[in-house]
Amino acid sequence: MAILLLGGNGFIGSHLAEALSARGDRVVVLDARAPRTDTQWRGIDYRRADPFAADALDAALADCDIVVHLASATTPATADADPVRDVEANLIGTLRLLEAMRRHGRRRLIYLSSGGTVYGNPTGLPVAESHALNPICAYGVVKVAVEHCIRIQADAGMLDPVVVRPSNPYGERQAASRAQGLIGIAMMRLLKGAPVQLWGDGGHVRDFLHVDDLVRLLVTAVHGNVSGVFNAGGGQGHRLDEVCALIERAAGTPLRIERLPARRFDVREIVLDIRAARDAFGWAPSIPLSDGVLRTWQILSRGARAVPYPPQRPSASTL
Amino acid sequence: MAILLLGGNGFIGSHLAEALSARGDRVVVLDARAPRTDTQWRGIDYRRADPFAADALDAALADCDIVVHLASATTPATADADPVRDVEANLIGTLRLLEAMRRHGRRRLIYLSSGGTVYGNPTGLPVAESHALNPICAYGVVKVAVEHCIRIQADAGMLDPVVVRPSNPYGERQAASRAQGLIGIAMMRLLKGAPVQLWGDGGHVRDFLHVDDLVRLLVTAVHGNVSGVFNAGGGQGHRLDEVCALIERAAGTPLRIERLPARRFDVREIVLDIRAARDAFGWAPSIPLSDGVLRTWQILSRGARAVPYPPQRPSASTL
Repeated sequence: MAILLLGGNGFIGSHLAEALSARGDRVVVLDARAPRTDTQWRGIDYRRADPFAADALDAALADCDIVVHLASATTPATADADPVRDVEANLIGTLRLLEAMRRHGRRRLIYLSSGGTVYGNPTGLPVAESHALNPICAYGVVKVAVEHCIRIQADAGMLDPVVVRPSNPYGERQAASRAQGLIGIAMMRLLKGAPVQLWGDGGHVRDFLHVDDLVRLLVTAVHGNVSGVFNAGGGQGHRLDEVCALIERAAGTPLRIERLPARRFDVREIVLDIRAARDAFGWAPSIPLSDGVLRTWQILSRGARAVPYPPQRPSASTL
Repeated sequence: MAILLLGGNGFIGSHLAEALSARGDRVVVLDARAPRTDTQWRGIDYRRADPFAADALDAALADCDIVVHLASATTPATADADPVRDVEANLIGTLRLLEAMRRHGRRRLIYLSSGGTVYGNPTGLPVAESHALNPICAYGVVKVAVEHCIRIQADAGMLDPVVVRPSNPYGERQAASRAQGLIGIAMMRLLKGAPVQLWGDGGHVRDFLHVDDLVRLLVTAVHGNVSGVFNAGGGQGHRLDEVCALIERAAGTPLRIERLPARRFDVREIVLDIRAARDAFGWAPSIPLSDGVLRTWQILSRGARAVPYPPQRPSASTL
């Protein structure tokens, strides 16, 4: 199978590119950045280009059947500072992708949305996919608009999409990508002896998903024929101060935490209901947060040397 | 009070400009088009400019307190054909307006959204403002995104907005504006002896609101201090074939109806719940559809000569 991967140079994209390639898929990456050096690109067709440029898309779609769209030019913080750029890059970009797919008769799209921002402040936990979409940040507004555009084309019979709404993915390579994700950032700051900025009182609740678990779901979606919208989370909420304690335990060192006022675009508590992905794909997260934090720390603190996992056990308690 | 009116040259905008000006408000219109000739512009500061251009906005906001944003570069049909243009013109345009308002410390915004497209196919009728926003057309996707952006700024204490979601406004001047609105289009076609295209079997249900009733609500919102999101509809659903029969009765002539397959971006049935606007503004529609259709026909068919209303009666049955 030939798969076009937009944003394949990112934290999640680079893991997915490796996983698909290792399975024997032909992978074409479109990414505006130079290929990162911590990823095994051998056998992957890496094309450095604006992932939404018509010529790059036309060339790639001529022989790719499936599109995985992970490209995002923004994070919640940068989108809030410049919402016009967020709309131009991500919403218009995605509309151009959908046009190009239509030109080439490509129907299968896996889109990475955002479980942490599309719902806004949930009316109850855990949040199922049917919850109203009331984003409280510009980043979430654009993710919702993209989702609506995809749904409309799917309802019109023009697209067979899987929209994945991940919670908070974490793991190897995250911190190097950009300022997004507490676990990676906190570990990088710890290694540098720098303080970690924490917005709010530490009582914000999130669920975290190891990137390997997310990639496993994405690979299943790529190779399946189910369409729909699916949350992808760790299944269990953790207070941010609890996460900090797990990092300290893994590192054997206390974090220097610099507390800042809560940001208005951060929802207070969110945990995703992941039963739909379980039912549709037989998927469940397999890496408990404490194990995932430990492994992420070990890899980060020892450089790129791989560390074997602790034996994986199904995290029944989190489901 | 000085009021900046974006899109003041349109069907609704021109009526609102006249109504505000007649009350003694200072009105500045920003509209890209040359001023229409069927409107009384005396006393109104009409500026022909892109309503979202920073220089035009800066000049106007220097001495306007309140913004009424009715500008739309698209209709549901044109947005569906070119969603990129819809996003560029309407979503990015509105973001630029919000930026300009922030620069000038202006907080009061009346925004005309779309009751007919933001909800998608409703789960029950009538549809209240709390119904989930699941648009099924590109036009609705952008209206929803704009609404989210406005709500986020309001929640952050930066804006005091009224978002009005009208159902299907109709009345004098509609048909001349653009291809939107069954009643105006059908009457214009009838006068030309041309057939009326009707998508679907005539069983689609809509509610209709006379432009004078909508303008009365907008004037109340401009001069009040209530913020929030409000449906504005006629309060009662009508099948499209029933509307056609009312037009035929007003005209004394049968319509030549050309039936076309239903369009996928038209919802099947929608009637808005208008209790929130009643409670907040003491507003209710006062012109029954049969009276409004008759008056619209009389004005259209006799040229611009004003026809006195039948004595207005509160349409209690529609509330």
